[in-house]
Amino acid sequence: MSPRGRRPGGGDTRADIIEAARDEFAEGGYDTTSLRAVARRAGVDPSLVHHYFDGKPALFAAVIGAPADPSALIGQVISGPREDVGENLVRTFLTLWDSAEGQPRLMAILRSAMTQETARRMMREFLTREVFGRIAREFAGEASPDEIELRAGLAAGQMAGMALMRYVIEVPAVVQASQEDLVRCLGPTLQRYLVDG
Amino acid sequence: MSPRGRRPGGGDTRADIIEAARDEFAEGGYDTTSLRAVARRAGVDPSLVHHYFDGKPALFAAVIGAPADPSALIGQVISGPREDVGENLVRTFLTLWDSAEGQPRLMAILRSAMTQETARRMMREFLTREVFGRIAREFAGEASPDEIELRAGLAAGQMAGMALMRYVIEVPAVVQASQEDLVRCLGPTLQRYLVDG
Repeated sequence: MSPRGRRPGGGDTRADIIEAARDEFAEGGYDTTSLRAVARRAGVDPSLVHHYFDGKPALFAAVIGAPADPSALIGQVISGPREDVGENLVRTFLTLWDSAEGQPRLMAILRSAMTQETARRMMREFLTREVFGRIAREFAGEASPDEIELRAGLAAGQMAGMALMRYVIEVPAVVQASQEDLVRCLGPTLQRYLVDG
Repeated sequence: MSPRGRRPGGGDTRADIIEAARDEFAEGGYDTTSLRAVARRAGVDPSLVHHYFDGKPALFAAVIGAPADPSALIGQVISGPREDVGENLVRTFLTLWDSAEGQPRLMAILRSAMTQETARRMMREFLTREVFGRIAREFAGEASPDEIELRAGLAAGQMAGMALMRYVIEVPAVVQASQEDLVRCLGPTLQRYLVDG
């Protein structure tokens, strides 16, 4: 649960920061947006942004309505055994996607990335830097930035495509598969893209 | 190039058949639609449907505006060496997707599958029966129908997700990757889902 605060002026500070961040991310994309610029636009002290949000990924997650801050989840996957990264990543995503509150939010994000250029750009940078890219950077050794971005893009594609079949197109056998069935099927794929190369 | 014919009444027979097939597929889905029912709805002799279209997959491909009849392409992949099925499938898809006339059509199909329930249902049955499912059935040995559908769904998800990253979200490293780079990365994944299990 995130704290909520009231400013003397009567507004909801946390909501104001999210609103300002939405505009900053939309204008400049994910990479170039700074928490300082968000604070300036919201008319609050930068320390307040840090008070409400645990870094830029958490703020971005709030802006797009993600059901969880992915930083913490990705951190857990990275800190686990190297040989289990693929399976742990698939399990983490499926647990979010399969949850009653996570699914409609993630569907909305997938749809807007399909249809809106602004959402597309933010999502592209966020997924390749903070989510899949973060794992690839951790394990890829001396791979080039392009190579890491390719690995991140392949992993993002595999997870998004699986979600498309399970939650949108609804292929019956993919809908009915248990989380652990899918972990066994997709884990080695993610492991190869992100860890073993 | 498909032949085009004029009926005495002045209509374009081939276009009439496509129109009738669109309605039949939309009402009954892909699986239950017969060429005989399409002919009846179009008010033409069934032999005319067979004259213009080389079977139900070809008719369906024309209805959805696919850039090629997938039956022939899948047939080529299946008749190649077993150990190359994954790579050949990825190469076949990328050649279509990367072509100037193929890309806008396939994008439109992907978009409508995301947003329209009718398109979604037709696409689900077509992909799991005629495209990926046909390959899985060919190589899966004694796998159950559910297992074959799961493999087909996983393969469809991998290809659709890659397309999402290369043509929609446009992750730069995935856009810039050559066809053969992607064949090397994705080939083993498709091989495992559809052939090796």
